[in-house]
Amino acid sequence: MKAITIKEFGGPEVLEWNEVEDPVPAAGEVVVDVAATALNRADAIQRIGLYPVPEGASPYLGLEASGRISALGEGVSGWKVGDEVAALLTGGGYAQKVAVPVGQLLTVPAGVGLAEAASLPEAAATVWSNVFMTARLREGETLLVHGGAGGVGTLAIQIARARGARVVTTVGRPEQAARLRDLGADQVIDHRTEDFTEHGPYDVILDIIGGGYLARNLRSLATGGRLVIIGMQDGLEGPLNIAELLLRRASVHGTTLRSRPPEEKAAIVAEVQEQVWPLIEQGAVRPVIDRTLALSEAAQAHRLLEAGGHFGKFLLVDDDAR
Amino acid sequence: MKAITIKEFGGPEVLEWNEVEDPVPAAGEVVVDVAATALNRADAIQRIGLYPVPEGASPYLGLEASGRISALGEGVSGWKVGDEVAALLTGGGYAQKVAVPVGQLLTVPAGVGLAEAASLPEAAATVWSNVFMTARLREGETLLVHGGAGGVGTLAIQIARARGARVVTTVGRPEQAARLRDLGADQVIDHRTEDFTEHGPYDVILDIIGGGYLARNLRSLATGGRLVIIGMQDGLEGPLNIAELLLRRASVHGTTLRSRPPEEKAAIVAEVQEQVWPLIEQGAVRPVIDRTLALSEAAQAHRLLEAGGHFGKFLLVDDDAR
Repeated sequence: MKAITIKEFGGPEVLEWNEVEDPVPAAGEVVVDVAATALNRADAIQRIGLYPVPEGASPYLGLEASGRISALGEGVSGWKVGDEVAALLTGGGYAQKVAVPVGQLLTVPAGVGLAEAASLPEAAATVWSNVFMTARLREGETLLVHGGAGGVGTLAIQIARARGARVVTTVGRPEQAARLRDLGADQVIDHRTEDFTEHGPYDVILDIIGGGYLARNLRSLATGGRLVIIGMQDGLEGPLNIAELLLRRASVHGTTLRSRPPEEKAAIVAEVQEQVWPLIEQGAVRPVIDRTLALSEAAQAHRLLEAGGHFGKFLLVDDDAR
Repeated sequence: MKAITIKEFGGPEVLEWNEVEDPVPAAGEVVVDVAATALNRADAIQRIGLYPVPEGASPYLGLEASGRISALGEGVSGWKVGDEVAALLTGGGYAQKVAVPVGQLLTVPAGVGLAEAASLPEAAATVWSNVFMTARLREGETLLVHGGAGGVGTLAIQIARARGARVVTTVGRPEQAARLRDLGADQVIDHRTEDFTEHGPYDVILDIIGGGYLARNLRSLATGGRLVIIGMQDGLEGPLNIAELLLRRASVHGTTLRSRPPEEKAAIVAEVQEQVWPLIEQGAVRPVIDRTLALSEAAQAHRLLEAGGHFGKFLLVDDDAR
């Protein structure tokens, strides 16, 4: 098969489309012939050499994919060759084939195209596990989503809205505000000119900024509020005001999805299938795709992602599978 | 009735034993004739003037008491005049009578004396709500209790041990180590000569220190670990290493018990009655009382508490009720 390989750690230009060995399914895994994969910020961090590949993971980039099952490992039941699937991956999506533990397989939601479905697993699992499983956002509560225009943000807004929460989001490009409101955001804050702390308090905050926002995030939490940090785009460390934390009876959670053991990933994926997929099939939540490129054009896709200004996900489609 | 009043904010000498008005039970409250109350660190903070009394709370000190019900407010059922009770209070325990919402009443556990029972509600509710309801300590996990010799610490060690956890605790006076092991601590760390981070990782940490321990607490958490901060004896702020937080998929919780609304207090008290009281009645958990003084000697009790070196709780008993 062909896959995107990393010549050496560096800029987008290190990504090359090369012939490599096919994956072999271990017990409990299937091989998926990849129709599409999607970009995540972690891909760029891994390309630079700052995201060590978890033990046992594919050496190739790519945390999600969609396609058709082409082989079954030992002991696999409930899936058969030819099934169309979406998959949450620990790596390996930037390739024509990928081996996936069955616990990380999802159906392709009705009404969503096979390629399009590759844009969903990572963001849906991130939103569900953090906002709902960890922070337990409830109907009628207020959620603040930092960076609402991103792949995670666009899905977080829609899912939270569909579950009856009030949703506030920050954006760096005010021209995107109308689209965010269209997705279900009740309020869109231009973080360059407005202070998000003035629009709280928030019951749950989903944060991708990290240290640079910690003090303000904490200060704008409601009593019993939960701050969930999933990214560190500005600052690996910040000052934690413990008096504020106690006063608010608040909590701060940090998580990553990729490093979780397979059984935790499977538990998350099962809840996504049960709780999020119906919202998609009802039309309450839809994939948001900024643009689609060929898998062989991964380098160009990384350049565009890093340039910023996108809205939703970047999809990479295998030309042969189109 | 008589109560301990605060002449002006200051040292233990501001506490005086004075004639004051009897409390009147509101709807849903009972009046308890106090047999005993117990000291909490918050009492000293309130005496100094740094702990604002929550709205609607008694102006007198005292977060727990035991005694006999002497009057019922409107709409009270399930309790009758003469019943012996322990109670979690929002204030008012340092007095001969106190009004208590029925949701904060507990029975006197079989095998525990009426006065002795006053030492249990605040520590039991603190341990149960933080270690079990918030941090969800499970059988087989490891709990680190900072300050194991205190009122909360001595109860946390026993309850966690009785629930099948491994318990590590820190102590500042090594001569107390044997008594802590006797309560069920698997390991006792002298924090003046040893580094507690070297004995981790810990699944749950119950912390009373705050900012000064934040970095080390976080660093010694296990994957999925939970740090619960209930005190700030050293530092209202500390540096939060977000990379460590994400790497460990950890969480930091801050709580206070006193400021919770009555319905949350009632939910905690109901679980304490159901989950902790049986452990006491079986003998797996016992009240740990350092010494007993008269309620009129509250000033002297505060002096002794602030001098440190005690093991367990200080009890104040009403001389007339003895």
